[in-house]
Amino acid sequence: MTDTWSQRWSRRGKLAAAAQAPSRVPAPGMISFVFGDPDVPSLPLEDMAEAAEYLAEHNRRDALAYQNAITDGELNAALAEKLARDQGIHVQPEQIFVSHGASAGLSLLCDMLIDPGDVVLADAPAWMGATNMFRLAGAEVRGVDVGEDGADPAQVEAILDDLAREGRTPKFFYTIPTFQNPEGVELSLERRHALAKLADERDLLIVEDDAYVDLRFSGAPKPTLFSLSQRGNVIFSGTLSKTIAAGLRLGYLVGPADVVATLARGAVDTLRNSYTAALADWYIRSGRLAEHIQHLRQIYREKCHRMLAALEREMPAGTSWTRPSGGFFIWLTLPEGVDAVDLLPAAREAGVDYIPGTAFYSDGRGRRNLRLSYSGVTVEQIDEGIARLAKVTRAALAQTAATAD
Amino acid sequence: MTDTWSQRWSRRGKLAAAAQAPSRVPAPGMISFVFGDPDVPSLPLEDMAEAAEYLAEHNRRDALAYQNAITDGELNAALAEKLARDQGIHVQPEQIFVSHGASAGLSLLCDMLIDPGDVVLADAPAWMGATNMFRLAGAEVRGVDVGEDGADPAQVEAILDDLAREGRTPKFFYTIPTFQNPEGVELSLERRHALAKLADERDLLIVEDDAYVDLRFSGAPKPTLFSLSQRGNVIFSGTLSKTIAAGLRLGYLVGPADVVATLARGAVDTLRNSYTAALADWYIRSGRLAEHIQHLRQIYREKCHRMLAALEREMPAGTSWTRPSGGFFIWLTLPEGVDAVDLLPAAREAGVDYIPGTAFYSDGRGRRNLRLSYSGVTVEQIDEGIARLAKVTRAALAQTAATAD
Repeated sequence: MTDTWSQRWSRRGKLAAAAQAPSRVPAPGMISFVFGDPDVPSLPLEDMAEAAEYLAEHNRRDALAYQNAITDGELNAALAEKLARDQGIHVQPEQIFVSHGASAGLSLLCDMLIDPGDVVLADAPAWMGATNMFRLAGAEVRGVDVGEDGADPAQVEAILDDLAREGRTPKFFYTIPTFQNPEGVELSLERRHALAKLADERDLLIVEDDAYVDLRFSGAPKPTLFSLSQRGNVIFSGTLSKTIAAGLRLGYLVGPADVVATLARGAVDTLRNSYTAALADWYIRSGRLAEHIQHLRQIYREKCHRMLAALEREMPAGTSWTRPSGGFFIWLTLPEGVDAVDLLPAAREAGVDYIPGTAFYSDGRGRRNLRLSYSGVTVEQIDEGIARLAKVTRAALAQTAATAD
Repeated sequence: MTDTWSQRWSRRGKLAAAAQAPSRVPAPGMISFVFGDPDVPSLPLEDMAEAAEYLAEHNRRDALAYQNAITDGELNAALAEKLARDQGIHVQPEQIFVSHGASAGLSLLCDMLIDPGDVVLADAPAWMGATNMFRLAGAEVRGVDVGEDGADPAQVEAILDDLAREGRTPKFFYTIPTFQNPEGVELSLERRHALAKLADERDLLIVEDDAYVDLRFSGAPKPTLFSLSQRGNVIFSGTLSKTIAAGLRLGYLVGPADVVATLARGAVDTLRNSYTAALADWYIRSGRLAEHIQHLRQIYREKCHRMLAALEREMPAGTSWTRPSGGFFIWLTLPEGVDAVDLLPAAREAGVDYIPGTAFYSDGRGRRNLRLSYSGVTVEQIDEGIARLAKVTRAALAQTAATAD
């Protein structure tokens, strides 16, 4: 790049110019547990063609024209019905802002809420897609530890108290309560009540990212934080990327009507993905989404169980991992003395790829952790990939033992 | 909205909370020349269904999965071929960043190039969608007057000199050279050469927004600034919103490969609208886009000529207007003494709506101007709407004369 360009970039542009982005396409022969990609064979491609045909037959030319991000019918109405039925969220269609994927919704929240120097609370470990956005917006991110029962409300309260002593108030607490990314754990019922109560008592805004909420392997869902807050202190972030298709780029934010209307006025592109929104609307109303979700639950349950069994069979003693009840991810803790960052070159050499835990923290923690995505790979790849991971882990353990001698 | 929320909004959020957004849906009976909306009956809805069927038949499930904004084939290759043929722009597919509509591309440029306090040059009058974005990003916007021959290179040079004396360099000059929004005028060949030369001599980045370039009513296109710059000092912003469908949300930025790769790393959502991109790819490759553009040229030419004829027939002496060779807009100057802002309530009362010229300037200019969009209305609405506009203008003129007596 010429000198001219290096002078043109903004603060944010300079960060991007210096950054490296991993390729989404793994090298030949590599088994990649890196990305939370969907199960490709089940993507409803034929249904989308049927939906497109329906729109043509019904002269729905409006689906190709400009449409606002908020409407009082169409996809908004279909989502409102689904939210009431599946997530206990009772809202009017106008309380839903349809965005270009959930990322664009979160980015809008950053634009509308964060000034440089503001504090934001977030899961620790957290999905780096969100925390990177917060940092690009200039926020200071404070982590709330996520354990087997999800994020710790007592720690949230302690951080609020600390900040209050500094005269500061956090803009929001970002959390993935259900099948968390990267840990795969679920916020307990007790902690859900505690967090919702805290939000109401302390006027804390919670941004509840429930991207995986529909992908529960079995049993009844836990109530959303949105449904538990009595005072509208939760913005719910949803997506159709995991249940219909990421390629439709459809996410949504749910909140008080006046807040959502303000968000819409602050959006750079106030227009929705109207064509894919119309396809999704048809897919939801036809009842196919509900059926498809049942199918996806089986698919991801099988993949998850297959990976858990492979870990049990292959990994050396001292390794531990989470046992998800849904979603896309398992969080693994390597045996004492084995480092996930140091292990990565050997793992890639052996043909298996993952994300080291450090990528999900901002303070150097997570060196013994790694995230494994089972969603996008085949069951055969799961067996072989975990075998490869176990082999390099055992080799690293042996080396650690030899060094200790 | 509760007090809590008013404290949560960022600088930008507060601006949006205080702003008013016009509805895209006009009141019953209102003839709206407000939005640059497409001609709805010609939107290729059946073709999109055929494209969706094609994707299903060819098992193109990748079109529903995550895809990066930059690829070396698919829509990028189709666009590269089209750019070479129609715009004299010869680039590799990797030099094209596909965004969620052109707005998302411009927003990315703001994120990546503008720090608060930076200077940006822009057409005056200019499309407010762009200048609003620049201001939200914290830029100071300096206007370059746009006349019958487009933006004035001598004025650009004078502003560069002024800024240099202050020790400042503008981040870029944003301009719509072809069928400008809002004036409908076209940058002359001479001025194109002068601006490209200036960009190269002064290391000025030009952001060339050519949203309407394909919609020339007749004759040969003029060379793009991109094709005239010898040193890669132009980023070209294109869109499929005006030629296929706004509802697909597909825009694109074209520039040097390393610059485009950096832009992609800085994007919040690095994933493209992969499904609509695949539909558009099919539409372009099948040759239908080229045919459809011929059809659209006739449609918009007819509407433009109808509006020009109605203006000629109806408007009182002292009114003048631009005579576009393409695009969606006519820029009207009211007779001396008639104010477009003051006239608007009476116009709406009479059942016709427009945007006053002041909305396209930031310094109070444009009070005698207004923008008329002929693209989305029918020819009957054009006749009736201009008759209504003429009637309220004559009434205002009469009142002005009476007051002067």
